[in-house]
Amino acid sequence: MQNILFGTSYLGTNYAGWQRQNNALGIQEVIENALEEICGQKIEIFASGRTDAGVHAFEQCFSAKLNFKEVKKLPNALNAKLPEDIRILWAKEVDDNFHARFSAHKKTYIYRIKTEYIESPFDSFITTYLSFNLNLEKMQQAAKLFIGQHNFKAFCSANTSCQDFVREIYSLNIQRQGQLYEFEICGNGFLYNMVRIIVGTLVDVGRGRLTTENVQQLLNGNERKNAGKTMPAKGLILKNVEY
Amino acid sequence: MQNILFGTSYLGTNYAGWQRQNNALGIQEVIENALEEICGQKIEIFASGRTDAGVHAFEQCFSAKLNFKEVKKLPNALNAKLPEDIRILWAKEVDDNFHARFSAHKKTYIYRIKTEYIESPFDSFITTYLSFNLNLEKMQQAAKLFIGQHNFKAFCSANTSCQDFVREIYSLNIQRQGQLYEFEICGNGFLYNMVRIIVGTLVDVGRGRLTTENVQQLLNGNERKNAGKTMPAKGLILKNVEY
Repeated sequence: MQNILFGTSYLGTNYAGWQRQNNALGIQEVIENALEEICGQKIEIFASGRTDAGVHAFEQCFSAKLNFKEVKKLPNALNAKLPEDIRILWAKEVDDNFHARFSAHKKTYIYRIKTEYIESPFDSFITTYLSFNLNLEKMQQAAKLFIGQHNFKAFCSANTSCQDFVREIYSLNIQRQGQLYEFEICGNGFLYNMVRIIVGTLVDVGRGRLTTENVQQLLNGNERKNAGKTMPAKGLILKNVEY
Repeated sequence: MQNILFGTSYLGTNYAGWQRQNNALGIQEVIENALEEICGQKIEIFASGRTDAGVHAFEQCFSAKLNFKEVKKLPNALNAKLPEDIRILWAKEVDDNFHARFSAHKKTYIYRIKTEYIESPFDSFITTYLSFNLNLEKMQQAAKLFIGQHNFKAFCSANTSCQDFVREIYSLNIQRQGQLYEFEICGNGFLYNMVRIIVGTLVDVGRGRLTTENVQQLLNGNERKNAGKTMPAKGLILKNVEY
């Protein structure tokens, strides 16, 4: 058996997230079905991590064990079977002990916000629209506090079985172009809903509901309920995974 | 009755074009239905021009005669009834003799092309993907020939009842950003499929199938069949209409 790593891009709008599940269509299932068509047998795939319902990916990675003569031709073969909102970008053979989840050491997410009243039909499915203004400088100041290793318990959904809340954030940049704010956050791993809660907290700073001191307190052990809201899934995009 | 001009943005992907028609859903019908819900009576709307099936608009304009107390509140009221892929951007009262079609004196279209092999789920519905490279400089040289007043018969679908093929092009710029080529064309009016055929002809120049001399011959009276193909609808966006 070959161990193959794939890059995939998808619009999460029409899916119940990455994970295969009952009663709803996950992206994993759609790709596994396409692989089964091509390889003639059931194949399980393992992503770098799950993305939630409605979350998108510019470049998610997953691995699978299978036999295929010309690995370079796998993306084409799969794309012919997949719907337009899921594309396989590339495929390459990796070591036998490589695992898309456990071998990942860096992930980057983007969160898109527009402060416009009327949502554009051209990007409303990959952008969260807010009807109030944001102070970019204040958000950028607070963003710096997240850099480094911290206990992110206050930035994790209460709905988790996770025990270890320590993660490291390598960078967290906020860029503004007109009414579009793009948050780019890179770290060694993320807790459940962590990016969406961090962005929700920064939005509260940007609108004056929280201060940088409040953010520091949250990182020092304050509770989840005092952090910002979990932002909607549709504005979140997994940019890439590094191995 | 008030005469009201509206700005609207729509993703044409799921519609059979602007025009109301039998057996297929036009954007006009969707907006007229929303207006009827709000005003309690059937109201006919008149656009600056039709857009074909699959063509989009950043800002299309249409006018309608109706009575509504606070015109500023019309966009909100309509957006609450409209699907997410059609938005009303603004509404304002205009003179009684104003007509969205006949009063328009300038229209600008954008055509988006990417020369990438794998279509992105994030823009494949507003971009035409080509699997060959384009020479930007050659296309820009040929583009200059279109500026000014010409007989555009060679750049009009044979399927037309139009008799007057003279139009004026004010500007035609091609910008490249990575693999994305954006054609922006502004004129006093456009014949049926004219933008898509002009872009198809420039693409033929960009891939070396046609020369600038060929383009000049087409503008001097050569036939439609010697021009480029009609490019797919999905890459075409009506940018705005000027009055």
